[in-house]
Amino acid sequence: MREATNPAWVAKAEALKPQLLERRAEPRRLVEAVADETAFQGWRVVDCGSADGLSERVWAQGDSFALDFGEPQVGYVTMRIRNVDSNADAPLRLKLIFGEMPCEIGEDFASYEGWLSRSWLQEEIVTIDVLPGELRLPRRYTFRYLKVFVLSASIRYRIRFEELSCTSVSSADLAAVPPLPPQVPERLRQLDEIAVLTLRDCMQTVYEDGPKRDRRLWIGDLRLQALVSYVTVGGADLVKRCLYLFAGLQLDGGKVAASLYERPEPFADETELYDYALFFAAVLRDYYAATGDRETLTELWPVAFDQVRLALGRLDERDIVRDDETWYCFLDWHDELNKQAGAQAVLIYAMRQARELAVELGDTSALSELDEAIARTSAAALAYLWDEAAGLFVSGAGRQISWASQVWMVLAGVCDREQGAAILSRLRQTPDAIEMTTPYMVHHYIEALIGCGEREEALSAMLTYWGGMVDDGADRFWELYNPRDKRLSPYGSNLVNSYCHAWSCTPAYFIRTYYI
Amino acid sequence: MREATNPAWVAKAEALKPQLLERRAEPRRLVEAVADETAFQGWRVVDCGSADGLSERVWAQGDSFALDFGEPQVGYVTMRIRNVDSNADAPLRLKLIFGEMPCEIGEDFASYEGWLSRSWLQEEIVTIDVLPGELRLPRRYTFRYLKVFVLSASIRYRIRFEELSCTSVSSADLAAVPPLPPQVPERLRQLDEIAVLTLRDCMQTVYEDGPKRDRRLWIGDLRLQALVSYVTVGGADLVKRCLYLFAGLQLDGGKVAASLYERPEPFADETELYDYALFFAAVLRDYYAATGDRETLTELWPVAFDQVRLALGRLDERDIVRDDETWYCFLDWHDELNKQAGAQAVLIYAMRQARELAVELGDTSALSELDEAIARTSAAALAYLWDEAAGLFVSGAGRQISWASQVWMVLAGVCDREQGAAILSRLRQTPDAIEMTTPYMVHHYIEALIGCGEREEALSAMLTYWGGMVDDGADRFWELYNPRDKRLSPYGSNLVNSYCHAWSCTPAYFIRTYYI
Repeated sequence: MREATNPAWVAKAEALKPQLLERRAEPRRLVEAVADETAFQGWRVVDCGSADGLSERVWAQGDSFALDFGEPQVGYVTMRIRNVDSNADAPLRLKLIFGEMPCEIGEDFASYEGWLSRSWLQEEIVTIDVLPGELRLPRRYTFRYLKVFVLSASIRYRIRFEELSCTSVSSADLAAVPPLPPQVPERLRQLDEIAVLTLRDCMQTVYEDGPKRDRRLWIGDLRLQALVSYVTVGGADLVKRCLYLFAGLQLDGGKVAASLYERPEPFADETELYDYALFFAAVLRDYYAATGDRETLTELWPVAFDQVRLALGRLDERDIVRDDETWYCFLDWHDELNKQAGAQAVLIYAMRQARELAVELGDTSALSELDEAIARTSAAALAYLWDEAAGLFVSGAGRQISWASQVWMVLAGVCDREQGAAILSRLRQTPDAIEMTTPYMVHHYIEALIGCGEREEALSAMLTYWGGMVDDGADRFWELYNPRDKRLSPYGSNLVNSYCHAWSCTPAYFIRTYYI
Repeated sequence: MREATNPAWVAKAEALKPQLLERRAEPRRLVEAVADETAFQGWRVVDCGSADGLSERVWAQGDSFALDFGEPQVGYVTMRIRNVDSNADAPLRLKLIFGEMPCEIGEDFASYEGWLSRSWLQEEIVTIDVLPGELRLPRRYTFRYLKVFVLSASIRYRIRFEELSCTSVSSADLAAVPPLPPQVPERLRQLDEIAVLTLRDCMQTVYEDGPKRDRRLWIGDLRLQALVSYVTVGGADLVKRCLYLFAGLQLDGGKVAASLYERPEPFADETELYDYALFFAAVLRDYYAATGDRETLTELWPVAFDQVRLALGRLDERDIVRDDETWYCFLDWHDELNKQAGAQAVLIYAMRQARELAVELGDTSALSELDEAIARTSAAALAYLWDEAAGLFVSGAGRQISWASQVWMVLAGVCDREQGAAILSRLRQTPDAIEMTTPYMVHHYIEALIGCGEREEALSAMLTYWGGMVDDGADRFWELYNPRDKRLSPYGSNLVNSYCHAWSCTPAYFIRTYYI
């Protein structure tokens, strides 16, 4: 675990740690997950009746049942369990499976073959020595469905769940969310609501990427969560906390980490991502635009500017970002995506964000350095990464054409609005371009369309993509969604996909910023 | 859960709840359990080196190891776990198996087919979200061996157990145990020590029968534990607490329950056992003999006398205890044992104990009632349960000859010392008599021998039986031990036998009462 590079900043962040608000939730109905090839990911939930009478239902050793809490929960589960027929002459052993999605309570976890640790599967075996008694599970779970297996009681007694509830937690207060104006159509209200709830469930003592997995602060997610927060629940102090954590926990050489852990004490993951480090400048820029907090801007500006300088160090003699095979830059979850052009574009994008801050602070030295670098890298992008015949940007030695490259080049302002719109239009006519797989990437596509003045196209894309999730049953927005491959998982199993994922919450930002 | 019949007595008992003393224990060595048909119960423990370097050993996903704490523990386990190679980018999931005996860490619990609940198998699957971190297991385990399986970490990190220890608990203070005189031979010292440690490990906030299973106060065990306590650790207040619990929590009709639970609040198990209820009088008699506590005697005497009267209600027109097929009387764990003669004898035995108390209290009415009943039931025993040809007592319609019947008739004083000695001698020449299976029954055999003046035979029996356990590897005395069937379990699997069991701790009583 790395030492803090600036303990005072970490202390400042810790002082901003929010209190969590609690809500109590109870199961609404009994359900069963049934295999159905026509259903999303192959699992359909069948209603087995209201959970109102649950406290009277009696279960014996060998029984199992599944509960639906009606909507997703992020919290702590408590059960009051009573023995029936006799006193409990042996301990009670339960298996509990928590699932965000029907697949998690439908599939057998034993069949899991993904490459992420099985420990992400939300499964517990618990033994209760004293009945009647209360079981307070110490871990936090993210779930809508809870499957309970009565592994062992005894031949003498059965059990009732007198009470079974979840205390859900978040640092977001929905009461702070401004109501949408009355003219906003129903479908947009629906997307907005799910987006806000997605944000709420990810807003804990930091902006987590997903409350089920990784439960961690990633700067790429933070950037989008912050944008949504400013126009919904507020939360600028939580952004500030996260900025100070990243600033106080830099990696070797001063690079900002891609992600952070809060416990046992805040520390940085050693993963470096080219784009994520650069986003420090973007998050700071957005934070300052939302708050006008000049003290924080002044204090953290050197960190932001350092990220740009460090990123410029990766340019080759042509002023193009050096490509390689490693996971040096994220952009999107796509195994075949070449990152070079996207990385180049994110660099330029971040320099433009940083430039705004340099102007604001009157840092003329930084300003001239940035202007020179923006010009130089933009020219190099057009000289080496632009394919005139295709009318699209290309990436890597294989001159790959991808959505990520085009979108980021447009966002970077390498071309003007009309050219940008033409590129994005041409892209839609290029079926073999490497496609987008995550809401995170689709967000940037929509942002790029809006930047080019293509508001209708952007709205349509949002309605198609996030609306598709809703039509596929989403009650929170997902980490991954590919309408053409609905079981897509970069982890080898959709059981560990996160189905409430921060980077997917931006419809609320788009709707509230551009469509009201 | 039954209401207390006398809440004031339960409150009195609760006020006597002792503080537990704590001891810290660490693993001594790494071991492996290896199948070996020549070893006790088929499992041999192989040394795999000192545990001194454990905190430096690094374990990856898929690894497992077993620890030997050197001696049995009853307590709470804590582990400080540190991630190695990388931060812990996914939770850590461990499987832990606690075993008193090598068989528990050798056999696969999945193969368990006993009829007691599998929940008695001391197995946990735990998931740790934060590393480095401390895992404090909330349940109490009884174990010498701990097997650890690293079920899932991640491909990025491995782990070290920086610290792994057990805080063992007992209400017994070994410092109070009087030293044995120097002339006591080594073998007896060894039996005495193991017996005292067995008692210590069962002495918690009540006298538990076994700290692994059932972890419950049974009056049959209490009676023997109390006898050992008085001559070793003291503990009269704990006996008093247990007497008041039984007295305050009577079953319907005023019968004393066979066993009690302490949590969530003290309550009686509904099991009635003919012999166990009668032992209330015996425990009270022994308590008064040890303490002279007349206040308690006076208060609880009516409960003791009630048990006799209730037991007399089961006599048939011949003044013989009505037999039946149910588990109405314990005596010993033997499926074929007929309980009638033994029950009759325990009744007479208990009346003699009660008679002493009636004399002490000057309760002449009770005294004459008891004298009349003792005479009547003793005469009936000789008239209907004595087989003159065999020179032994018989039990039930099948006129079964068992060790239990003879031993209890001798203890009941139905015959004189010489006759008793002759019966027990004849019994040893009767190979088809239903044998003894538990140390509890063997205790009574030895007590009967001593009562007949056969001290050498008694000593020899004790050395053979408890010495046999020691030679088979016992470091605490066991619930079950049949030298001719070492895997014997009344529960269908020796995995759930208790290997530190209260009713087996009486060598210390015999040695200190009769052999020093």
